[in-house]
Amino acid sequence: MSNKFSTRMSRIKKSFIREILKVTIDPEIISFAGGLPNPDSFPIEGIKKACAEVLETDAKNALQYSTTEGYLPLREYIAERYVNIKGLKATADEILITNGSQQGLDLTGKIFLNRNDYVIIEKPGYLGAIQALSIYEPRFRPVELYEDGIDIPMLKKTLRKYPVKLYYSVPNFQNPSGISYSEEKRKEVAAILNDNPVVFVEDDPYGELRFTGADKSSVKKYKENNIILLGTFSKIVAPAFRLGWIYAEKDIMEKLIVAKQAADLHTNYFSQRVVFQHLKDNPLDEHILNICKLYKIQCDAMITAMQKHFPENIHYTIPEGGMFLWVTLPKGKSALELFEIAIKEKVAFVPGDPFYVDEENVNTLRLNYSCENETTIEEGIRRLAKAISSL
Amino acid sequence: MSNKFSTRMSRIKKSFIREILKVTIDPEIISFAGGLPNPDSFPIEGIKKACAEVLETDAKNALQYSTTEGYLPLREYIAERYVNIKGLKATADEILITNGSQQGLDLTGKIFLNRNDYVIIEKPGYLGAIQALSIYEPRFRPVELYEDGIDIPMLKKTLRKYPVKLYYSVPNFQNPSGISYSEEKRKEVAAILNDNPVVFVEDDPYGELRFTGADKSSVKKYKENNIILLGTFSKIVAPAFRLGWIYAEKDIMEKLIVAKQAADLHTNYFSQRVVFQHLKDNPLDEHILNICKLYKIQCDAMITAMQKHFPENIHYTIPEGGMFLWVTLPKGKSALELFEIAIKEKVAFVPGDPFYVDEENVNTLRLNYSCENETTIEEGIRRLAKAISSL
Repeated sequence: MSNKFSTRMSRIKKSFIREILKVTIDPEIISFAGGLPNPDSFPIEGIKKACAEVLETDAKNALQYSTTEGYLPLREYIAERYVNIKGLKATADEILITNGSQQGLDLTGKIFLNRNDYVIIEKPGYLGAIQALSIYEPRFRPVELYEDGIDIPMLKKTLRKYPVKLYYSVPNFQNPSGISYSEEKRKEVAAILNDNPVVFVEDDPYGELRFTGADKSSVKKYKENNIILLGTFSKIVAPAFRLGWIYAEKDIMEKLIVAKQAADLHTNYFSQRVVFQHLKDNPLDEHILNICKLYKIQCDAMITAMQKHFPENIHYTIPEGGMFLWVTLPKGKSALELFEIAIKEKVAFVPGDPFYVDEENVNTLRLNYSCENETTIEEGIRRLAKAISSL
Repeated sequence: MSNKFSTRMSRIKKSFIREILKVTIDPEIISFAGGLPNPDSFPIEGIKKACAEVLETDAKNALQYSTTEGYLPLREYIAERYVNIKGLKATADEILITNGSQQGLDLTGKIFLNRNDYVIIEKPGYLGAIQALSIYEPRFRPVELYEDGIDIPMLKKTLRKYPVKLYYSVPNFQNPSGISYSEEKRKEVAAILNDNPVVFVEDDPYGELRFTGADKSSVKKYKENNIILLGTFSKIVAPAFRLGWIYAEKDIMEKLIVAKQAADLHTNYFSQRVVFQHLKDNPLDEHILNICKLYKIQCDAMITAMQKHFPENIHYTIPEGGMFLWVTLPKGKSALELFEIAIKEKVAFVPGDPFYVDEENVNTLRLNYSCENETTIEEGIRRLAKAISSL
């Protein structure tokens, strides 16, 4: 690479998943590699009416520049949901509207990270966060994820050993693993962090997509300060609007607003107006229930098919919500090798590699179930099982 | 400030203009402080029909996640305009859709700038660029702007003296000054830069808003490599969509796509679809002609009023397009002081200070004419003249 580019760009690889998705364009391939919400769940009629309504009643404002913070009624709506659903004390001035929660990650990196700052990330961890934060050249310290959440002794050890700046976490139905933190672990994490200046980033794109089991508290419930929550309408309304948000306390919010303004002035205002209008006219909770019903059927179909077709020595997580589950092959087996075989069997997934910052050629892989119907899922898992057998 | 934040954030001030706009909320104040396109020019009917059409015919795709580069037909449309209007050899794969051209600036800073890299900026320079690039902690080297463009000897001297990484420019109807580079200066700039590894950033939000004088070439016409063009639909369709773009050669585009993906995955796809549908159904050139007619009337009204009311010793630029003009008070006078008096006279503008990286308490100020009608402009300039007299 020529030295005309900044050093930060030399650390970033082209997206692994992008490359994989190119292979899966073949229509004969059943793909569990994506991470898209099911378009059958998009509230098309509501959006159609909302567009018409906004343009009929207030077009000149709805098409104009707006404030960096975002549309106030939408921010109030988000704050109220935190109050009503999570029992948090959120107010609208603690909410910043972002271009999807991916931008929340970029702004978080921007305002907190100097080069070589330490960041705790779950292992495996969310690829989008690894990419976004890598731009700011931190040193990642991965901490193992168990089926009930983070490895607490390892977390403590890491915090003792390094002056950690950020701890990035997806406590609900994590991408890639489908794992959720137990209520107990949330409390423990908060207690540990309350003695430490680390900022906790609670990324929660899937939290509302619970189709089984009891709701869990936000870590924010147990930790008042040095915590940022990221949320998004991508999985509960539609992704194309790129509407996410950051919920943060005052001193952090001030920096976020300055960084957001420098980054793009403000988020698409027309879409903020349309989505708010839609949410005002159509109860979101009902809509979410329907998405959860759909995803439960798909997740159950995948698990049933795995129970039927997979060899005994293949381990997989059983998520209580969200869009992903996580498969572990026997030790020493390579998910990348499996991928090559699977493509020949016309089934695709994401090998675990991009979700690790410190390992390669791992024996884990991610399956997405939100975009295929039961029959296709059964057939895809049958093919995958066949690929596993010939590995 | 606590050291929990990154050092880059300590360099950034809260937007000066934001603070000023707060003062101008008083409805009795005539404000020339804004920088908004006139909402009377928004193609409301076209957008309404485009929303309906997109949602009627392809809702599931239009509401889904999409590619980082942006909607291909929209990128083709943009590339074709460069070919047809500017005679450039643009292709769709050289176009990246961004959240307004402000994000183009952020991505440019991100991929090119290491801390302490040198950046040439016009003096006065565009505030949004100063803010966006400041995040990456460069050293700005301002080069004076004359009424026909950059100060060429000073540009050469700066390039000899410093290993400059970027040269940021708004060659058409610059914000804040309304100044355009002459054709001759464009050639000269290109010739100078062709011997130098500096990357030229040609930001052109207003170029299509020419209401008098002959069209000028893009600097890209004279310079093939190491050049980035930024464009936007904010001033020719509507700003709320936050639809801008970067036009860049292959090696730069590759880095931009990686940075864009890390920053927010992709730009609002629904809006890309809607704006493309609108552009397909409604000839843009005709629409732009109407905007130009409107702005010419407003600009003429402002200049006529200044000729009538301003003392002889006040200098102002006479723009051939765009939304701004630039007033210079006599030496030693302070635009900030004038602002205080003007507010009491119920008229507002932006004092020149935020457009300089190396001067304070300057004697220049920016006036915006795109948002008020002729009568209000005449009255506002009368008030401003009164304030100037009592300065």
